[in-house]
Amino acid sequence: MTDQKFQPVDSSVTPRYAEIASFMRAARAELTSEVDIALVGVPLDLGATFRSGARQGPAGVREASRLIRQVNPTTGVAPYRMANIADIGDAPTHPLSVEKSVELIQDFYVKIHAAGAVPISIGGDHTVPLPILRAIAKDGPVGLVQIDSHSDTFDEFMGTKYNHATFVRRAVEEGLLDPKRIIQIGLRGTRYGDDDIVYGEKTGIRMITMDEYEEMGRANVIAEIKRVIGGGKTYFSIDIDGLDPKEAPGTGVPEPGGIMMRDAQMMLRALNGIDLIGGDICEVVPSLDPTGITCINAANLMFELTCLAAVAHTVRKK
Amino acid sequence: MTDQKFQPVDSSVTPRYAEIASFMRAARAELTSEVDIALVGVPLDLGATFRSGARQGPAGVREASRLIRQVNPTTGVAPYRMANIADIGDAPTHPLSVEKSVELIQDFYVKIHAAGAVPISIGGDHTVPLPILRAIAKDGPVGLVQIDSHSDTFDEFMGTKYNHATFVRRAVEEGLLDPKRIIQIGLRGTRYGDDDIVYGEKTGIRMITMDEYEEMGRANVIAEIKRVIGGGKTYFSIDIDGLDPKEAPGTGVPEPGGIMMRDAQMMLRALNGIDLIGGDICEVVPSLDPTGITCINAANLMFELTCLAAVAHTVRKK
Amino acid sequence: MTDQKFQPVDSSVTPRYAEIASFMRAARAELTSEVDIALVGVPLDLGATFRSGARQGPAGVREASRLIRQVNPTTGVAPYRMANIADIGDAPTHPLSVEKSVELIQDFYVKIHAAGAVPISIGGDHTVPLPILRAIAKDGPVGLVQIDSHSDTFDEFMGTKYNHATFVRRAVEEGLLDPKRIIQIGLRGTRYGDDDIVYGEKTGIRMITMDEYEEMGRANVIAEIKRVIGGGKTYFSIDIDGLDPKEAPGTGVPEPGGIMMRDAQMMLRALNGIDLIGGDICEVVPSLDPTGITCINAANLMFELTCLAAVAHTVRKK
Amino acid sequence: MTDQKFQPVDSSVTPRYAEIASFMRAARAELTSEVDIALVGVPLDLGATFRSGARQGPAGVREASRLIRQVNPTTGVAPYRMANIADIGDAPTHPLSVEKSVELIQDFYVKIHAAGAVPISIGGDHTVPLPILRAIAKDGPVGLVQIDSHSDTFDEFMGTKYNHATFVRRAVEEGLLDPKRIIQIGLRGTRYGDDDIVYGEKTGIRMITMDEYEEMGRANVIAEIKRVIGGGKTYFSIDIDGLDPKEAPGTGVPEPGGIMMRDAQMMLRALNGIDLIGGDICEVVPSLDPTGITCINAANLMFELTCLAAVAHTVRKK
Amino acid sequence: MTDQKFQPVDSSVTPRYAEIASFMRAARAELTSEVDIALVGVPLDLGATFRSGARQGPAGVREASRLIRQVNPTTGVAPYRMANIADIGDAPTHPLSVEKSVELIQDFYVKIHAAGAVPISIGGDHTVPLPILRAIAKDGPVGLVQIDSHSDTFDEFMGTKYNHATFVRRAVEEGLLDPKRIIQIGLRGTRYGDDDIVYGEKTGIRMITMDEYEEMGRANVIAEIKRVIGGGKTYFSIDIDGLDPKEAPGTGVPEPGGIMMRDAQMMLRALNGIDLIGGDICEVVPSLDPTGITCINAANLMFELTCLAAVAHTVRKK
Amino acid sequence: MTDQKFQPVDSSVTPRYAEIASFMRAARAELTSEVDIALVGVPLDLGATFRSGARQGPAGVREASRLIRQVNPTTGVAPYRMANIADIGDAPTHPLSVEKSVELIQDFYVKIHAAGAVPISIGGDHTVPLPILRAIAKDGPVGLVQIDSHSDTFDEFMGTKYNHATFVRRAVEEGLLDPKRIIQIGLRGTRYGDDDIVYGEKTGIRMITMDEYEEMGRANVIAEIKRVIGGGKTYFSIDIDGLDPKEAPGTGVPEPGGIMMRDAQMMLRALNGIDLIGGDICEVVPSLDPTGITCINAANLMFELTCLAAVAHTVRKK
Repeated sequence: MTDQKFQPVDSSVTPRYAEIASFMRAARAELTSEVDIALVGVPLDLGATFRSGARQGPAGVREASRLIRQVNPTTGVAPYRMANIADIGDAPTHPLSVEKSVELIQDFYVKIHAAGAVPISIGGDHTVPLPILRAIAKDGPVGLVQIDSHSDTFDEFMGTKYNHATFVRRAVEEGLLDPKRIIQIGLRGTRYGDDDIVYGEKTGIRMITMDEYEEMGRANVIAEIKRVIGGGKTYFSIDIDGLDPKEAPGTGVPEPGGIMMRDAQMMLRALNGIDLIGGDICEVVPSLDPTGITCINAANLMFELTCLAAVAHTVRKK
Repeated sequence: MTDQKFQPVDSSVTPRYAEIASFMRAARAELTSEVDIALVGVPLDLGATFRSGARQGPAGVREASRLIRQVNPTTGVAPYRMANIADIGDAPTHPLSVEKSVELIQDFYVKIHAAGAVPISIGGDHTVPLPILRAIAKDGPVGLVQIDSHSDTFDEFMGTKYNHATFVRRAVEEGLLDPKRIIQIGLRGTRYGDDDIVYGEKTGIRMITMDEYEEMGRANVIAEIKRVIGGGKTYFSIDIDGLDPKEAPGTGVPEPGGIMMRDAQMMLRALNGIDLIGGDICEVVPSLDPTGITCINAANLMFELTCLAAVAHTVRKK
Repeated sequence: MTDQKFQPVDSSVTPRYAEIASFMRAARAELTSEVDIALVGVPLDLGATFRSGARQGPAGVREASRLIRQVNPTTGVAPYRMANIADIGDAPTHPLSVEKSVELIQDFYVKIHAAGAVPISIGGDHTVPLPILRAIAKDGPVGLVQIDSHSDTFDEFMGTKYNHATFVRRAVEEGLLDPKRIIQIGLRGTRYGDDDIVYGEKTGIRMITMDEYEEMGRANVIAEIKRVIGGGKTYFSIDIDGLDPKEAPGTGVPEPGGIMMRDAQMMLRALNGIDLIGGDICEVVPSLDPTGITCINAANLMFELTCLAAVAHTVRKK
Repeated sequence: MTDQKFQPVDSSVTPRYAEIASFMRAARAELTSEVDIALVGVPLDLGATFRSGARQGPAGVREASRLIRQVNPTTGVAPYRMANIADIGDAPTHPLSVEKSVELIQDFYVKIHAAGAVPISIGGDHTVPLPILRAIAKDGPVGLVQIDSHSDTFDEFMGTKYNHATFVRRAVEEGLLDPKRIIQIGLRGTRYGDDDIVYGEKTGIRMITMDEYEEMGRANVIAEIKRVIGGGKTYFSIDIDGLDPKEAPGTGVPEPGGIMMRDAQMMLRALNGIDLIGGDICEVVPSLDPTGITCINAANLMFELTCLAAVAHTVRKK
Repeated sequence: MTDQKFQPVDSSVTPRYAEIASFMRAARAELTSEVDIALVGVPLDLGATFRSGARQGPAGVREASRLIRQVNPTTGVAPYRMANIADIGDAPTHPLSVEKSVELIQDFYVKIHAAGAVPISIGGDHTVPLPILRAIAKDGPVGLVQIDSHSDTFDEFMGTKYNHATFVRRAVEEGLLDPKRIIQIGLRGTRYGDDDIVYGEKTGIRMITMDEYEEMGRANVIAEIKRVIGGGKTYFSIDIDGLDPKEAPGTGVPEPGGIMMRDAQMMLRALNGIDLIGGDICEVVPSLDPTGITCINAANLMFELTCLAAVAHTVRKK
Repeated sequence: MTDQKFQPVDSSVTPRYAEIASFMRAARAELTSEVDIALVGVPLDLGATFRSGARQGPAGVREASRLIRQVNPTTGVAPYRMANIADIGDAPTHPLSVEKSVELIQDFYVKIHAAGAVPISIGGDHTVPLPILRAIAKDGPVGLVQIDSHSDTFDEFMGTKYNHATFVRRAVEEGLLDPKRIIQIGLRGTRYGDDDIVYGEKTGIRMITMDEYEEMGRANVIAEIKRVIGGGKTYFSIDIDGLDPKEAPGTGVPEPGGIMMRDAQMMLRALNGIDLIGGDICEVVPSLDPTGITCINAANLMFELTCLAAVAHTVRKK
């Protein structure tokens, strides 16, 4: 049915609860040029300013993703038939230094990029996208779709430039992201002040608060995403706290009144065909997730990102 | 106020937290011809292919259903004034064999059917409806309203015909269900392949995916349910995973992006008057439900099914 | 930026997880006439008829409210710049007598009222608003906005006049509330009978069930709230079970099919400018809240009530 | 094998997880003179001064006691072959008044006593033994074995005479307990002051603190229990907080450094033959017991008390 | 420091929380003759008669065993320097049939045995040792050290020969175990009757109840183990419910008053040098283990078994 | 009864569940020279190498310590009558840098030391004692009693000198601790290698493993503690993982087979009269503590340390 070498564990042969957990039961493999889409964990929470524990995010999502199957129910995309997809393990991190971790992560993604693979990652706190972008967007600014309750455009936090509230600003400053091609969806939550929003407005980031999301409706938001990112290379970053807390209680900084999983799924499915160069889901904290719903939702979003990547891979091959 | 013999515990006399838990505090009784509506537990999880624990479903729902009162807030239906409703205990099952359990369950429901009672059941995994239908639909195919994230129309799983993913197909094959009078609501979730969907299409089952549900809207879905089942005898089966995982994390195979309790309640309330011959709620796993919301929602859905059964009972008596 | 004396802990200096927990990190202070808005805990659960544990409500919300910041994302209201807001601790209660607790609470709020402060309270079960209203509405009946799944207009429960199901009726009888200026939003849940609803209809309380809420839509509900309460003094009481159980599993009597946090937030934000004399959030039970979402949502609603109070304070000062 | 009428559910026929939960799967029956040992729930937490929730104690223990079998592994006692043992349901209580509850409980146990049954009860907070003793020890003072971390000999708490810290003192004052025949085991925990201990010393209660327990060793403690209670009528009350918190985290006032289940079991087993007139296990709070260990241990202690009662019953019959 | 090929992940380079979870961070490998000690998961719970969920045992222990290091603190044994140890994944099982699962498991262990590896396994319910013994003890009866609260010597359960209460009897009947060389430690728990104990006595199994354990003391129990198993081939099976429930709440049938982890560790450490042909830890149910202590303890016991296997391997090589 | 100015909340007036949580309900106060014993939180987890979350330790222990009373049940010490004891809040920390945090903590304790107060602290991970010792032991090396499963004498971890596994070595190197006056109790757990133990042996640290603890018995261990620390100034550091995991599951690196709370309490009580200059309890992780037992035990140990400090204060005053 497919000529792709890497195939996930077949759940009609090996029960879902059996065998070592890999992301979505994908084949485990070392990084080589055979890998088209690399599923990667980035266990880091040293950039978190409130509740820590996102370092267990990759472990939690690997376990929860046992129930992911192989075909997208809305789009029909079957990614494992379209690309070689493998769980290549976790990026190295340093358990005691966010700065060293950022360097180690960047080095790892440089290799992924060199191998020609598109990375779909599970964080880790939302510091994680910065070293990824440094590795895969170093040839010029790319676009960004960001589902998040916070804009992550602060300049610093307590004198620190690298943390989970600053990655967008850093990436714009470093020329990795084109602010005109950034769209942020789900912004809300009580606020410290205006510093982050002013920065976004000044640089031309398209910020869609929950108020605006609700006024526009999902269909118009999807159209707006397409308009903002246009046809260029695009990265997709999901802070799980962009979802409503009832969808994702297991996160560091939950903010009520957010995006529903159904809407997140449909937004992602509507973006088939974008030139995706990578994606991540961050801020999953399993120790705060006794019902497991956060990890389950993250696993399902990982599948959606993987479908987007598989379609983009197919387009590129043509 | 009523001449029905069986009345639930009166919570204005006996506090909700007191006394042995029966379903919705209904009277406990042996099965006799006096019972019009039989509340039944079916503790079984040997048909589950991922996470087990639904064998504790009846115990969990009995405990959670202490807070159910006696009058439907939307329809005004007061079932205990319309029919003799009793918790008749659990169907016998075999803890080590799904096949023997299916036989034991069938035998038990044959007796319920012979006594003239309509069973409203709490599973147990979704193997449970098959032996129920064999007992109560043996005189000819009936209709089915199914709220579920999966169509349960697989032919087999690992060589096994009887499990929680095949009951609809088996029941159609055995002439218990009329596929033209089956409607499935809430289908979604990543998929293995097309086998189940193809079967549904081929036999004429009306499958409403979440995509279609959303496009149609609840009112049109209700109209479509009525159209499909028409005026004939109808069974109602709710796999609790038809609800969104945030409504029902305590289940074996949660699938994000599902039906909200509010919508489930309103669909059920809109079907007053259908010729209901039985109903069930399956796949509740209390050990995966630390907040208790799954059991609470199942208890409330049990009340809705009981209201439908009470109205149907009244219609039949006329 | 502000000349208000009482300022909350600055989370850009003191991390959110640090220091003793006060409501929303507000300044802790003894009650004096300097306090404009008093944040108060009322630890009581002796009025609860099903699941107890609301006595830990204030402790749970203090801890969860560490993540509240200072500016409202929709309205831009920055309450700490507009009024002196302080956590003045808990009202005294008696751990073994609901009657004595009601007296102690009333005495405490008499002092708050005398000091000229508007109280925003965290209960405690829903007996709590009665002694508050006795203290702050003693000069004539006021209006009430009530988000709740139950109308709390029973006459008594097992012979007892003071409990969590009667406060509205008592307050109307005592001339504290004007029934024509009461609006209840979110009513639902299976019912005992008609006693409470009949009382509401007879006295002219505007009861919006979930059925009606859904038919009207949020915007019309907001308009109706404004119409009912008009320009007079108004109290705002939120029983956390007015929210859907997936938003608030940690409560004594959860009722599926309720109000979403997003809608609660937007209703509150739309009422800027009402003449708020106090508000409360009751029935938070931390021991039933393993994900913490109930406490987090209560904390966010407390911020919304505080914003309303700050605007009202500013209007009054002019 | 036995001529006793009431037999528990046979777990080799009906799986442990099946059927409505009764205490230890005992037969459910109305109170009649056929019942020799009455298993009773007393759902009350209005006497608790710290963490509430013991009102769910009977429900929690009924569910957890599904795994109790029929023969004591140490003594070989098989109580169901020796006496008619039935779960007669819960004592009535008032959800809003500890005083009324105390009266209702007393009335219920008067009936049990009149029927000639020995009650083994699951509370409820530790106010519960007082009304029980008023009913079953009204003919003269009896002895008491009390496993507890607190002596419960305070005179009052905040002006209240009836609560979970005073039952022993009240019962002595009322002539229900003979202080010279009271032995308290497991006393510990930081203390308010000396009031309770002074009372115990003054009246001649034998108080064994954990310090003394450790010095004496279990065998000597058992001998001391026998010495103190002698041959007369004896009641046995277990506050589950007498156990170490790792054995019983689900309780209102846990005190580290307590008694192990193994020791509690062996103490109880060593007392075969005492003239037991009743026993209880109090202060089980299921909402604080996520691992379930507290309810499981309480269920096992209930079996031990039932074995003592069965032996005493057999002795009396001779 | 070692010439062994397979080395675990080095936690001083790769943080404990990083990378895909394998048993004790051991190298993952396909089964070949290079593997001396095979770490295996056996995900099965179809043999459980009360609470299911042991199918997730291997997943839970893999995750929890991230904190196992490389040197035994008491004996100094460093197994990875002594033998090639690898996680070879899970034995195949059938999710719907205990009989088919038993066959699949046996086939898998036949291959392990043929490859010359000693298996250390994580179940799965306690049906698991039977197919293992069929594979690795087929050349003659071996000895058994069993830590367990139940003797597992029933003849059948509800007509079923293969389940978690019968493995010892089956294995004796099939000539896989020499009853004279079986020692069972930790027996306790209320009992159904005498069938299992009589069988043990009749066949000469050495049964050490908790009563006898306590009387003998740990040192004498260790001596007795050595005496019973003598110098021959020995298998070691740990039902995690042999531990006290406070050490292992996450299991199907907890029995209070059991063995402490400290004692289990020291018993295992004292058996260095026995001719171990395999070992297992069964009945770990992660869904009932919210604190994680059961999985953590199982992980530590797995390390102890692995140390025994490494010493035995070294002895054999000489 | 006492002339001490700072008194805790009186729980016979203000219920335990009421009011803002401070450590053991102690008076909250700014640091002044009036404070004799300063209760301090140190919210830090950036030095943790496995599971994070100890930054919530102070919040968790403040809440759990509501049940601490005022008199020691074994020694009779009543610390609030002997010294002015206040909760002075949390030491400042930096959420993104362990190095900066160490500096901030040190500065804070310098002020405590200058004010003449003895600090009793709740961490935070076990990096915390180093900056404390730098502040309060800068005049010459002091003794150390350490209850811990790990010796914390590593030289570095992944190139980092300051983390939760190195504080003892750093403090010895810096002349803050006299290795001859260090005693470590409870060492166990699988090991990386010998680096830490060799350091301890070389420098003369008295290391008591669990094996030795068990051989010696508690009384001899207490005697050995007294012998090692002698009469000089002593600091007391408790890593909560020194307790057995069933006493403290809520910690980063649990190691089975550890010290019981009863033993910890009795060791502490036996040390009345030592010249205590400070103490801490570290590594409490509330997010991993669903039963709450870890926080409760930490709260009780805090009381024991406070009693020691109060006695030492009294001795010094004489």
